[in-house]
Amino acid sequence: MTAQHEGQSPKPARSTTRRTLVTTELLDQATQLFAAKGYESTSLQDIADAMCISRPALYHYVRSKDDLLAMLVEQVSQNLADVLADLAARADLSPTQKLRELTGLLVRQRVQHPAQFRILDQSEKLLPEPADTKHVEAKRRVLREMTAIIDAGVATGEFIPVPARTAALSLLGMCNWVAWWIKPGAEVEPIVATLTGFAQRMLASTADGRPATPADALREIRTNLDWLEQRM
Amino acid sequence: MTAQHEGQSPKPARSTTRRTLVTTELLDQATQLFAAKGYESTSLQDIADAMCISRPALYHYVRSKDDLLAMLVEQVSQNLADVLADLAARADLSPTQKLRELTGLLVRQRVQHPAQFRILDQSEKLLPEPADTKHVEAKRRVLREMTAIIDAGVATGEFIPVPARTAALSLLGMCNWVAWWIKPGAEVEPIVATLTGFAQRMLASTADGRPATPADALREIRTNLDWLEQRM
Repeated sequence: MTAQHEGQSPKPARSTTRRTLVTTELLDQATQLFAAKGYESTSLQDIADAMCISRPALYHYVRSKDDLLAMLVEQVSQNLADVLADLAARADLSPTQKLRELTGLLVRQRVQHPAQFRILDQSEKLLPEPADTKHVEAKRRVLREMTAIIDAGVATGEFIPVPARTAALSLLGMCNWVAWWIKPGAEVEPIVATLTGFAQRMLASTADGRPATPADALREIRTNLDWLEQRM
Repeated sequence: MTAQHEGQSPKPARSTTRRTLVTTELLDQATQLFAAKGYESTSLQDIADAMCISRPALYHYVRSKDDLLAMLVEQVSQNLADVLADLAARADLSPTQKLRELTGLLVRQRVQHPAQFRILDQSEKLLPEPADTKHVEAKRRVLREMTAIIDAGVATGEFIPVPARTAALSLLGMCNWVAWWIKPGAEVEPIVATLTGFAQRMLASTADGRPATPADALREIRTNLDWLEQRM
C-alpha cells in the first residue's frame, strides 16, 4: 500500500460509517411513515421533513421510494442472510450455541427495527427488480442456513429428531412476530433471553442442552421415575 | 314452542349453514384475489367472476369491500377468540391439554385459510368501524385467554415459570407464521403434530408433560445421571 493510499483510507471509511448511520435512520423514519400513512400516501418530501433535512439533501441518499425498498432488502434480508451464513460456518460453536445466537440475532433485529421488517413484508409485491430477486434469494438463504444448523444438531443428537424446515420456520415465526408486538422503548434483553430459552427447549434433546442445575436434574430424574412407577 | 315455530325451525338452520359455507368460500376467493392483485385493484366484479356467480347474486352476501373486511374480522379474529374462551373455560382439561388444543386450533385455522389471515393483518389500517374496534378487542381476548391458560399451567407447576404474555405472543408468532409459509395442498396433521410438540416443549416443566415412552423416560434419567456424574 502506498503512502497516498494510507493517507486516503480513513476518509472513505468515515464517510461509509456516516452513510450507514444515515441510511439506518432514513429507513427507520421512512418505514414509520409508511406504517402510519401507508406506502402510497408517503412522499419523499414527508421523509425529508421527518429527517429534518431538505429534499435535495435527501436525494444524496435516495432518489425514489423504489430505492428505499431496495435499501430495505439490503438492510433487512440480505444483511441477515450474510450474518447467519457466517454463524453457520463457525467451527467453534455447537449447534445449540448457534441456535441461541441466531435466535438472539433475529429477535434483536426485529426489536430494533420492527417497522422496517413489517413494511418489507407488506411491500413484497411492490419490490422493483433486482431487489425482488435479491429478497427472495436472501429469504431462501436464511431458511437454508437455519435448516443446516438444525440438521447438524439432530445429527449430533443435541436436538430431537424434527423436520428441520418446519422447525426453522417455527423459530422464524416466533422471532419475526416480535415485530408485531414489541412496544417502543421495551427492554430488549429480557425478551431475547425468554425467546432464546424457548428456541433451545423446542429442540434440545436432553436436560444437558438446557441451563440446568443439579437440582433441576434431580427433579427431572424423580419425575421420570414416578412416571415409570405409575406405569408398572 | 308452537307447532308453527317447530315447523319453521329447520329452514333457517339449513339456510344459515349454506350461508356460512358460501361466506367461507367467498372470503377465501376474495382474499386470494386481494393477495394476487392487491386490495385496491380488486373489484366486486372480480370476486363474483371468481365465485362463478353474477354480481347481483354476490350482493346477496356482500355489498362492498368494507363488508368483506368486516366479515373477515368476524370469521378470523372474533371466531378464534370465542373458541379460545370456550377452551380456556373447560374444567375437564389440564393446562397442557389446553395448550395442545389451542396450538392445533391456531395452526389449522392458518393452514386452511392463510390468505384470510394475511390479508386481515395487512388491512388493519383499512378496517371500517365497528369492525376495527371488534378486531382490536378480539385480538386482546385471544391474547388474554392464552395468557390465562399459561398462567394456570405455571401455577400448577406443569409449565416452567415464564412471562406468560411473552410466551403467548411467542406461540402466536410460531402458529400465525404458518400463514406465510404453508404451501397449497400441504398435509395439515404432520404440521399440527410438530408445532403442538414445540409448544409443549417450550413450556412443559417435566418429562411427565411430554408424550414420553418408558424408553424416553429411561434415556432422560440416564442423561441426567451422566450430567450429574460429570459435575461431581
